[in-house]
Formats: sequence, structure tokens, C-alpha cells
Amino acid sequence: MTDKPSLNPLVALTQQTMSEVNKVILDRLQSDVSLIPQLAGHLIAAGGKRLRPMLCIAASMASSKNTNTSPESALYLAASVEFIHNATLLHDDVIDSSDQRRGKQTANAVWGNEASVLVGDFLFARAFQLMVETNDIWVLEKLSVAAAQITEGEVKQMSMLGQPGSPVSDYFSVIKGKTGVLFAAAAQTGAKVGGGDTMMCEAFYQYGLALGNAFQIMDDALDYGASDSQIGKNLGDDFSEMKITLPIILAWQDSSDKEREFWNRTLNIGEQSEGDFEQAQLIINKYSCIERSLDFATAEVVKAANAISVIQDSVLKDALIEAAEFSAFRDS
Amino acid sequence: MTDKPSLNPLVALTQQTMSEVNKVILDRLQSDVSLIPQLAGHLIAAGGKRLRPMLCIAASMASSKNTNTSPESALYLAASVEFIHNATLLHDDVIDSSDQRRGKQTANAVWGNEASVLVGDFLFARAFQLMVETNDIWVLEKLSVAAAQITEGEVKQMSMLGQPGSPVSDYFSVIKGKTGVLFAAAAQTGAKVGGGDTMMCEAFYQYGLALGNAFQIMDDALDYGASDSQIGKNLGDDFSEMKITLPIILAWQDSSDKEREFWNRTLNIGEQSEGDFEQAQLIINKYSCIERSLDFATAEVVKAANAISVIQDSVLKDALIEAAEFSAFRDS
Repeated sequence: MTDKPSLNPLVALTQQTMSEVNKVILDRLQSDVSLIPQLAGHLIAAGGKRLRPMLCIAASMASSKNTNTSPESALYLAASVEFIHNATLLHDDVIDSSDQRRGKQTANAVWGNEASVLVGDFLFARAFQLMVETNDIWVLEKLSVAAAQITEGEVKQMSMLGQPGSPVSDYFSVIKGKTGVLFAAAAQTGAKVGGGDTMMCEAFYQYGLALGNAFQIMDDALDYGASDSQIGKNLGDDFSEMKITLPIILAWQDSSDKEREFWNRTLNIGEQSEGDFEQAQLIINKYSCIERSLDFATAEVVKAANAISVIQDSVLKDALIEAAEFSAFRDS
Repeated sequence: MTDKPSLNPLVALTQQTMSEVNKVILDRLQSDVSLIPQLAGHLIAAGGKRLRPMLCIAASMASSKNTNTSPESALYLAASVEFIHNATLLHDDVIDSSDQRRGKQTANAVWGNEASVLVGDFLFARAFQLMVETNDIWVLEKLSVAAAQITEGEVKQMSMLGQPGSPVSDYFSVIKGKTGVLFAAAAQTGAKVGGGDTMMCEAFYQYGLALGNAFQIMDDALDYGASDSQIGKNLGDDFSEMKITLPIILAWQDSSDKEREFWNRTLNIGEQSEGDFEQAQLIINKYSCIERSLDFATAEVVKAANAISVIQDSVLKDALIEAAEFSAFRDS
């Protein structure tokens, strides 16, 4: 990796199919109850990278005999995965009382928590309707398991709030649930509808899981200023919400008694005042916790690349590997 | 109906299978994340009538060649329906900021809104996992459509808040969504896994829909004191939450200008003070709106009985008809 890794090669290779996926997404947002497409559209039309459906489509292409095509069922599947993701975003923003996402006001800030909870439920239900259209019960099984694991990860994350002394293994169990498994299931089921065999589906599961973990580790590092050039991201959100992420866990392990007092005051008791976030950054940097977080992310990238070493060499394979690198080394 | 209709005959006929369903319910609540079974168990173990899974089981029995048995897949299906129902209860209590349900503190009152939102999501995901175990994609289709319609009904109900002049047809569209379709899909898919043909499944859909509508109409009437002997139910909850239910809509239609001023103040502007609920009851009784609500419920009971007129006469059929009557004429 001499140049900065980019998502562009994968975007280019999946572009045509992804425009079909976007049509399905907008179409299936519709409802006679006008508040639903309004609220859900506010979030979904705001975009984001569409990384999960893109991986789903890429995996279906990589698994099909003609690597330039994707079966129609992959479109429904990809849209379904994006709906699940956006349902969790709507609920997360309610839970975190967030007022900004993707540079816009959150849905809960505009329409209230009640509407966000319900429209999240709607997207979740609609996701299952879309999955049914793949007519593949194996796909439904994998995605329903993933959906349950996502919520388990989120509940576990909530249980860890305010406990900076949590072990690294708990952090990994949280991010596997809240982020990894949906990436994993998206790639795995994409491979399945593309015609992939058991080995191919498993390879893509492991690929997606590792990529998703790397993505979340980077996300959590960015919250403490991992990149000099980052924009559009609220620094310090995790800190003010007392979320226990990898930089904190690593910093706690090396902290002096006095520094642990600081962590306990700010993250456990929750007494935060001006300058505390900067102080947190200082301690994190003193113990190189961002660099060490990124080492964990690099290890996940290696796992992702190894997982798909079984598939044939192609520009698509190269693009998938670079997408994993991008997840771990991005500015926003 | 000389005696008060009772659920007991249906309870007795389904008792053995329902004890198996309860085992599945408790088993599938489990999770490594201990807060999940704790919180979900608080609600689900509190009981309730288990009416939806009971109808699912009864429909599967009525549709099978040997009417005393229910296939194993019906157990998963029945548990799944109860999970969906309880997921919506958890989210409803967050939305309504309720602190009491089934005579106990609500989960959100004990564990907070965040946990209730997430555990609701977990139950929803787990419901789909259970459905997958029926290995019947038709069942998944019907229940995923129902799940989406439930949220549409709830969002529509929210959009109607504070508008006492809403038409009766809007009310029926709300209760069909929030209540009717889950009863309908529970009975319909129960008939399917029991081996019922298209006609049988459709008959049970219509039966469940009418029973569910009757149930909700009665629920809304009980909130204004439809029964003299009602207990364990908070009178006036809908009024204080400014929910627009059938007694209100009917009362508004007949109200004088002065009475409409009262409705606008209390239910639209939301200025309520002591004595207002009693005043609301007075106007509702003046125009016989409880009796007229119950007439609508009676019409649904007739529809329910007509829908299953196609099935063979049996004690089960009689019990199903009495269950519909019970839904419309109960004390709590």
C-alpha cells in the first residue's frame, strides 16, 4: 500500500448494478403512510457509501460464472441489507440522542424519537419482505441470525458503558455484533445468490466479517482524531456518550492511577467539563493507542484478504482487497 | 350469547400444545447477553393471554387431518407471532412513555428506553429466525408483510394524534394495521402449516382480522370505562396521550360547537386539567359512543364467525367463535 487505498475500483465495477439496487431501495421505501418514505428517505437518500449492499453485489458477481452479472435476487438482497443497516441507524440515533448524521439533522431531531423508532421497525420488516423475494430460505436464515446478533452487540455495548477497564475481547465481541456480522452476512448471502458453493459463501462471510471489524475499529479511532484530514465527523461523540471503544481500553491498560481517576471521572461517573476531551486525546496519544488500534485494523485487513485468497485472481478480487484496506485506512 | 362469552373453551383445547409453545418462547429468549432474557422475560413471563399464538395453534389444529395435533413447525410459528407482538409492546411503551403494563412496571420504566428499543429489535429478529424454522417461505412472506403493516398502522396512528375530527375509516385503517393483521397472519399461517388449502388459509385470515379488529375496538372502549367490572387497566390512558379512538371520533361527530371546543382543547392543543377525563366520559355517554363502538365490534364478530363457516362443525369451531365473541365483550 504505497498510495492511499480507495473504494473507487469497487465502486466502478459495481456501479451499473448498484444503480439498479438504488432503484429498488427507493421503490420499496414507498408506503401509503406518507411519513414513512419522508422520514426514511431523509436518511437513505442522504446516501452514505452503500458499502454493505456493494459488498453483497460484488460477492454475487465474484461467485457467478459470468463475473459481470448479478442475478435479480441479488438486487433485493442488497436493498434488504441496506434497509437493515438504516433501521439500526434510526434506532441508534434515538438511543444516542444524536442530532447530526452524514452532515444532516438526524431523523429523530426532525420528526421525534417515536417516529424514528417506528420507521426503523418498518425498514426492518420491509427488509424481510425483500429477502423473501430471493426465494432462498438459507439467505433468510443467515440474515435473521445476523439481525439478532446486531442487537446483541448493541445491548452488550450498552452494558459496557462507563467501564473503561473492560477487556479488549469484550470490545471485539461488541463490534463483531454491531458491525461485523452484517457485512459478513451481506457478502456471504451475496455469494450464495450468485451461485457460490459452500466454500465460497464461507470465504465471503469471513471476508465481510474482517472488513466490518476493520471498518468499526477505524470508526472508533476517527472519533479521537485518527486522521488529520477528517471532515464531517463529530470528534468526541463517543467520549461524551461514555462509549468504551478500543482507544480507551488500550489507554486504560497503560494508565497511571491518576490517569485512571481521570477515566473514571469522565467515563464512569460521567463528570465531563471543558478540556476533558483534549486531555483524553493526550493520554491516548501518550500510549500510542490510535496507532495500536490501527494495528488491530491492519490485522483484520490481512484476514479479509486471506479469506478470499480462494477466489480466482481478477480485477474484482483486487478491488475487494483494496476495499478492505480502505475500510481500515480512511479519513471519514 | 346468554352467558358472558369466554376464552376458556379455546384455552382448554389448545392447552397441551400451548405449553410446548411456552417452552419454545422461554428457550428462544436466551442470549449470552444477559440483559436480553432479563428484560424480555420481564414482559413475556408476565403473560398476557397469549391470544395470538393460541389462534395460530387453533388454526393449525382446525386445518390438520387429525384435529388434535399440531405440527412442530406450528410451535415455532406461534412463538414467532408472540415475539413480534411483544417487540411491538416494548416499542409502544417507549413511544407512549408508559410505566405500567399488565399490572407491572414496564421494561422501559425499569431498564430505560434504550434497552427497550434494542430488546424489541432483538425479539423481532428472533421472530424471523423462528419463522425460518418452519421452512415455509410462504409463511415468511405473509408475516413479513404483516410486520410492515403493523408499523404502518402505528405511524398512521401517530399522524392522527390530536385530530378528533378524523373519519371512522381512518380509525379502521389504523386498527387493521396495529392489531388486525397480526391476528390475521397468525391464524392464516397457522392454517397453512397445519396443512390447510388456499380457501382454509384465507378463511382464517379473515377470521383473525375480524377478531383482531373487535379486540382493538373493545380495548379502546375499555379505556373510557366500557365495563363496570374492569380491573388492572388504566382508565383514561388514551385520553391523556391524545389518541384518537372510536369513542372520540363518534362523539366528535355529534358534538356541539362548545363540546368540540372541549375536544380541541384537550385532544388537539393538549391542555388537560382535573375533571376533563370525566367530562370526556360524559359527552361520550351522552351520545352513546361506547354502545355504538360495541356495535362495530359486534359486526366484526359476525364477520369472524362467517369467515370460518366453511370449516367443519366441531367443538374447536365453537370455541373459535366464542373466542371472537370474547374479544368483543370482555372486562379486561
